[in-house]
Amino acid sequence: MNSLCDLDKKDLKARLKRIEGQVRGLQRMIEEDKYCVDVLYQINAVQGGLKKVGLKILDKHVHGCVQRAVKDKEGDKVIDELMGVLSKFTD
Amino acid sequence: MNSLCDLDKKDLKARLKRIEGQVRGLQRMIEEDKYCVDVLYQINAVQGGLKKVGLKILDKHVHGCVQRAVKDKEGDKVIDELMGVLSKFTD
Amino acid sequence: MNSLCDLDKKDLKARLKRIEGQVRGLQRMIEEDKYCVDVLYQINAVQGGLKKVGLKILDKHVHGCVQRAVKDKEGDKVIDELMGVLSKFTD
Amino acid sequence: MNSLCDLDKKDLKARLKRIEGQVRGLQRMIEEDKYCVDVLYQINAVQGGLKKVGLKILDKHVHGCVQRAVKDKEGDKVIDELMGVLSKFTD
Repeated sequence: MNSLCDLDKKDLKARLKRIEGQVRGLQRMIEEDKYCVDVLYQINAVQGGLKKVGLKILDKHVHGCVQRAVKDKEGDKVIDELMGVLSKFTD
Repeated sequence: MNSLCDLDKKDLKARLKRIEGQVRGLQRMIEEDKYCVDVLYQINAVQGGLKKVGLKILDKHVHGCVQRAVKDKEGDKVIDELMGVLSKFTD
Repeated sequence: MNSLCDLDKKDLKARLKRIEGQVRGLQRMIEEDKYCVDVLYQINAVQGGLKKVGLKILDKHVHGCVQRAVKDKEGDKVIDELMGVLSKFTD
Repeated sequence: MNSLCDLDKKDLKARLKRIEGQVRGLQRMIEEDKYCVDVLYQINAVQGGLKKVGLKILDKHVHGCVQRAVKDKEGDKVIDELMGVLSKFTD
């Protein structure tokens, strides 16, 4: 189970819904031969949106799951797992 | 008009279709309280897919539009525009 | 005070020493008109080295300072600070 | 040979000199047990400086070498090489 309350879940799902629409928009841009540079800026916008979702989940994870694990003396394991995913995100 | 042939367009639309499905999958993961770290890895996978689409479009743009512009003595303008979007992508 | 033991400090200083040498090498490459693409690959190598140093410090920080703060009921403050620097690193 | 004029070279060397000093500063921060988060922000600043140097060299490379190659009908080869280094930089 994760650390997201109903309010967080609603916000994240709304953001992902918008991102889904943007990805559909990208397909249309390709179909309609839109100018490459405009497509690239749109891809960049989607990546920005995804990054924001990722940071929000990360924030909840560290404040929630990681803190709980530290209090339950399971901190090192959960932090190693966190570092694994962080090393991917900083790529 | 962009520099994508029908084969490129088909490939890019298939990739974006898959990304759209992954973004829908992310909404389900949030809904079903999947573990944050698994959601984060999935976000990372979507970002990787988008990056690949971006690089493919960039490749076609530079080989196509930019080369054409240079031959038509419009190179500097198109290259300034390219650098603008590249400075975003390296963020 | 940070969470680095003498062994970590020695390793990090050796890595930064190497990075310093690479940055001096870059100045030479510019001076000697080396091919741009080779300079760009070398810049990329330095960025990779810095990223590794950053991840190592981050790892020590979360395992050390953050865990200690959580146990001392100062977790939320230190985690907010951590998220601030992480949002920069994922740029 | 690259596409940098003397003015560009002077600017880039000054920037790299500053970065070299920052990397030396990082070694001191580690030695003096400065707070991890401050070290991480400083690493981030160095990465920003390196990125700027990279973008400046890239700009000169595309405006200079790449345009020249296209005019000499060597465009595709030089652009493939460019895409190789760009795919690294967008990591």
